Amino acid sequence: LHFADRLSAAVAERQSQLVLGRVPDPHNLWPAVVEQTSVPVDGDAATVAQEVAAAFVQQCRLLIEAVGDLCVVIKPQLACFERLGAPGFDALRQVVQIGQAAGLLVLGDGKRGDVPVSAAAYAGAFFGTTSTPFGELESLGVDGLTVNPLLGLDAIEPLRASAKQADAGLFVLVRTSNPGADEFFDLQLSEGQQLLWEHLATALSEYGSQHVGECGLSDIAAVTGATAPQHFARMRELMPRTIFLLPGIGAQGGEVGAALAPVFSPGRAAGLVSASRSIAQAYLQLGGEPTQAARAEAQRLRSLTWKLVD
Amino acid sequence: LHFADRLSAAVAERQSQLVLGRVPDPHNLWPAVVEQTSVPVDGDAATVAQEVAAAFVQQCRLLIEAVGDLCVVIKPQLACFERLGAPGFDALRQVVQIGQAAGLLVLGDGKRGDVPVSAAAYAGAFFGTTSTPFGELESLGVDGLTVNPLLGLDAIEPLRASAKQADAGLFVLVRTSNPGADEFFDLQLSEGQQLLWEHLATALSEYGSQHVGECGLSDIAAVTGATAPQHFARMRELMPRTIFLLPGIGAQGGEVGAALAPVFSPGRAAGLVSASRSIAQAYLQLGGEPTQAARAEAQRLRSLTWKLVD
Repeated sequence: LHFADRLSAAVAERQSQLVLGRVPDPHNLWPAVVEQTSVPVDGDAATVAQEVAAAFVQQCRLLIEAVGDLCVVIKPQLACFERLGAPGFDALRQVVQIGQAAGLLVLGDGKRGDVPVSAAAYAGAFFGTTSTPFGELESLGVDGLTVNPLLGLDAIEPLRASAKQADAGLFVLVRTSNPGADEFFDLQLSEGQQLLWEHLATALSEYGSQHVGECGLSDIAAVTGATAPQHFARMRELMPRTIFLLPGIGAQGGEVGAALAPVFSPGRAAGLVSASRSIAQAYLQLGGEPTQAARAEAQRLRSLTWKLVD
Repeated sequence: LHFADRLSAAVAERQSQLVLGRVPDPHNLWPAVVEQTSVPVDGDAATVAQEVAAAFVQQCRLLIEAVGDLCVVIKPQLACFERLGAPGFDALRQVVQIGQAAGLLVLGDGKRGDVPVSAAAYAGAFFGTTSTPFGELESLGVDGLTVNPLLGLDAIEPLRASAKQADAGLFVLVRTSNPGADEFFDLQLSEGQQLLWEHLATALSEYGSQHVGECGLSDIAAVTGATAPQHFARMRELMPRTIFLLPGIGAQGGEVGAALAPVFSPGRAAGLVSASRSIAQAYLQLGGEPTQAARAEAQRLRSLTWKLVD
């Protein structure tokens, strides 16, 4: 089944367009998770990494139990796991499995991008299996990966080929949610006075039109930060068959509101709202148990977003 | 000691500007390494990954023994290790240690780039240590990291701050070595009719001028593919104090020749020539033992490059 069709089915079934972002941080673990994390007083760095990795998995498990049924995608930020070394990688693999077991599509947020030979190696890290003279290597087996397009489409193609074979999707940066995103994405080009992000959008939309699912959406999706919603109408015009991932809701200042409406014009599955810290840390604002506060916030975001389409 | 001064000292001492790129591939291991790699016939994927990871470390060790003294930097491609999962990460850590023990600076080729909060997590993965409530986490401890600038300088800053504290450097993509690099890097901007890579070069040069070593070079270096040497004069003009990393020599078609001369105008340490497969696989062209062929090719590239400056 085409990636976009898998996503569309999940959106319809769960009545949700919510992405559970995971940016686990050793300083922001839930109290119950901290209590279970036993690090010997004189533990070496390897032991610390193992314990923190176990804590990341545990909090992720609790969070998925609390809000998984309200979401369609879980998006682990790879940097958070990478800083734990090998135990972090094993933790990430567990998070992928726990997420998929809960019926979620797993989107690896790695923003990878490299020359073709290295992009092919990344493809082997994330999608399907790779045969070697020594046997098969298993990838992380994610359902999607965020990708940086700066190097050109030839550098995306190896990832795309492997993703396609795995019925997975690529989420390519078109305009990110950080405060300084305007610095390069908003540069104006000579040709047609377009901005760089508009050019990227056009190129990716055309590239993605080669492989559209029955739902009418492509397996080449776009990362379009929710912190600059004034661009959504133009983005939708340039990318009519593209799924938009909207990071930056909550902690980064993005809001779910009428400004998002153009995102959903091709259908509800055409827009995914991603929130991370605002769900996991909701108890700091709302009080009560972290799991209950997370559920309340996820329910609120899911419902707000669903109501944007009549 | 400032990163550029560390590099300059190594260049002068070893009379070399050579970067040993490592893109280990299970299909391209040396025969002696393959013979030592024992995978049970019915080995599961985890066992295969462990064995391949051990083979990567072993070949890297042999290669460093063969050519390490002819090089100043070793540049492992992170994708190659990432596709092995946790064993790959442990192997990468060993490669970093073996490289540093041989007096090489280690440049992680990850082309990372993310929003500031995630860039800070990557900083923790690559540079220094991170304190957590559970103890200290150790990073990979590399001396440099390749970085993708598309998201803007605010997204580079957390990496830069950590790199600086570790006397490390960032190697930021200005124009890459892949055949399709022209697609976006060569877009023409309205302002000043500059190309996108020229704009990136200008911005990075200014950004890098905040922290220049005694040798006159910055800790913000640039990745400038060797496959389009016609740009080097202009690149040097725009980035007078920037170290250029030149990937793409050898297998990707780049050559060491007079066209590289502008790269070295601020001094020999201002240009690093990177070759990967052309060194490790030299025996396929030259015949003989892989270690001896690698040494001959490394010697040739080192000498050719050194002679470009009078």
